[in-house]
Amino acid sequence: MSRAPRLQDVALAAGVSRQTVSNVINSPEIVREDTRIRVIKAIADLGYRPHAAARSLRTRRSSTIAVHLDPYAGGVSGVVLDRFVHALADLAGDRGMRVLLYTARTEAEEIARLGDLLDGGEADAIIITGTYHGDPRTQWLARRGTRFVAFGRPWGDDDHHAWVDVDGAAGTRKAALWAVEHAGPDVAFLGWPSGSGTGDDRESGWRSVVPEGRGVRLVSEESVSAARAVVGEALASGAAFDALVCASDALAMGAHLAAVAAGRPELPIIGFDNTPAAEAMGLSSVEQLPEQVASAALDLLLASGDDRPEDRHVLVEPQLVVRGSADDGQE
Amino acid sequence: MSRAPRLQDVALAAGVSRQTVSNVINSPEIVREDTRIRVIKAIADLGYRPHAAARSLRTRRSSTIAVHLDPYAGGVSGVVLDRFVHALADLAGDRGMRVLLYTARTEAEEIARLGDLLDGGEADAIIITGTYHGDPRTQWLARRGTRFVAFGRPWGDDDHHAWVDVDGAAGTRKAALWAVEHAGPDVAFLGWPSGSGTGDDRESGWRSVVPEGRGVRLVSEESVSAARAVVGEALASGAAFDALVCASDALAMGAHLAAVAAGRPELPIIGFDNTPAAEAMGLSSVEQLPEQVASAALDLLLASGDDRPEDRHVLVEPQLVVRGSADDGQE
Repeated sequence: MSRAPRLQDVALAAGVSRQTVSNVINSPEIVREDTRIRVIKAIADLGYRPHAAARSLRTRRSSTIAVHLDPYAGGVSGVVLDRFVHALADLAGDRGMRVLLYTARTEAEEIARLGDLLDGGEADAIIITGTYHGDPRTQWLARRGTRFVAFGRPWGDDDHHAWVDVDGAAGTRKAALWAVEHAGPDVAFLGWPSGSGTGDDRESGWRSVVPEGRGVRLVSEESVSAARAVVGEALASGAAFDALVCASDALAMGAHLAAVAAGRPELPIIGFDNTPAAEAMGLSSVEQLPEQVASAALDLLLASGDDRPEDRHVLVEPQLVVRGSADDGQE
Repeated sequence: MSRAPRLQDVALAAGVSRQTVSNVINSPEIVREDTRIRVIKAIADLGYRPHAAARSLRTRRSSTIAVHLDPYAGGVSGVVLDRFVHALADLAGDRGMRVLLYTARTEAEEIARLGDLLDGGEADAIIITGTYHGDPRTQWLARRGTRFVAFGRPWGDDDHHAWVDVDGAAGTRKAALWAVEHAGPDVAFLGWPSGSGTGDDRESGWRSVVPEGRGVRLVSEESVSAARAVVGEALASGAAFDALVCASDALAMGAHLAAVAAGRPELPIIGFDNTPAAEAMGLSSVEQLPEQVASAALDLLLASGDDRPEDRHVLVEPQLVVRGSADDGQE
């Protein structure tokens, strides 16, 4: 048949009433088995599919939160955003809400996708991730009057929207304080090249503890092998090195391999993200608590619009997880 | 006001026409800025929210695939399912479909959630994960006539539904063949206690290459420290050990730490899952290709119902990724 098959067509093909077809779709347990099989066969033969939009009128759809899921990039730290999505789906489900994923490779594509989701009534609220200074997505969402929250600070833009973020500086500060107390004053830092909000923030926490002139500042791109080379050179150069605070677990793993190769396997090294990889290698790390971020994001989405701006920002304080022979546990 | 605010209420509060309110919601760029701000303020003040179900009538909702996302369990291998979800969201987006996440802690809860999603017209197709022998979810979905595909084989049940899975035995077979050729005939296996479909399958691939009497079979629970203890004991016992094939990367990492401690850092050890952690430690591993699994699952969901049953099953063959000083690259 050239037009899409209707409920009526299924009923006719199966020799049953329209109500029976509807029962097979919605309450199969109340339909006798032979009838049910006949109807399911007719549905399959005709390729009948109840029109989703018409069905969603009948029963009111739950609130749906759309979340941007980046393409999988690999790497040790990718798990943090995935933990956030897991927690969000879990918490939203408990509150009777849905989580819808969308992907986009560029910002223009992301805005187009969001427009589709909002225009189509498929999403009621949005969580965007990876915001930065001058982000056009938040401006577009605010202009449209959409209910949204950002995982990530506006980094210098007006605080006109709700956001939740992890206080990276507080995390590296805890790491540096622990290292100064347990290892010595020359606590080095291994970070990314300057210019990223996240990286500069993490460096600032270390710098707030370790004064200029103590503890070298090393730079590496985000890879285990690059970090291994950078730290290997620094150790060989004879620089004073009581401990090392790193901007990520991948950097910390590379640093640890360099320390082992240089005959200093006990050099205290602290990563950031508390990934399964760092745990498996027995490295200390700063735990971002993505489950708390997800919970705060949901709270902000459900909050009334009357809150003062400063009540719509949540900065989650990470925890330091200490591993190794000397100290085990959390601080 | 006690009832939910309507479009009309917003128009009245902002002193504009209903059409203007609608424009602010759907095409804000065509509304003058001062008017737009007034309307957005009225929307926020009243807490007005366009009724999602009514809106979804206007524009036809996209097909939506619901996917079970387990609560985050931690561990090195958790990333495999996350890579599958990333790929699914990406590929579905390209085909104009949506991915909706749901969580459930028990099977009864999962069936109830699925019922809600299907009854509410919120999902048009389902992907379930982690199927096993006698799984009530697949039986329930099949009885209901729902379009669904399982990531995971029925493990002995009737092949009455579409599924896609990774051929674990083919993966460990490749690993064992490589090890016999490059290291020697005594290739050991480190697996989980018998009884899991996945674990037994991976063991069978190794056993198809290494005859009884050669290569010890070791058992550990899924943890780095447990594996380290088991392999440490085996190495100390003096058993012949040319190489070790493992059922997971966590087991392989523990085995590698034991080998390093026993003065055999060059012992070839091959993990399973090709996680970022294994990559960071330079360990060989079997790559499951979750992106191919996602692509096959989508193909199966979109296929017509007329395919023969054997056309509705896809077994993805994993790849061996060899790392280490001797060999680099894929085989």
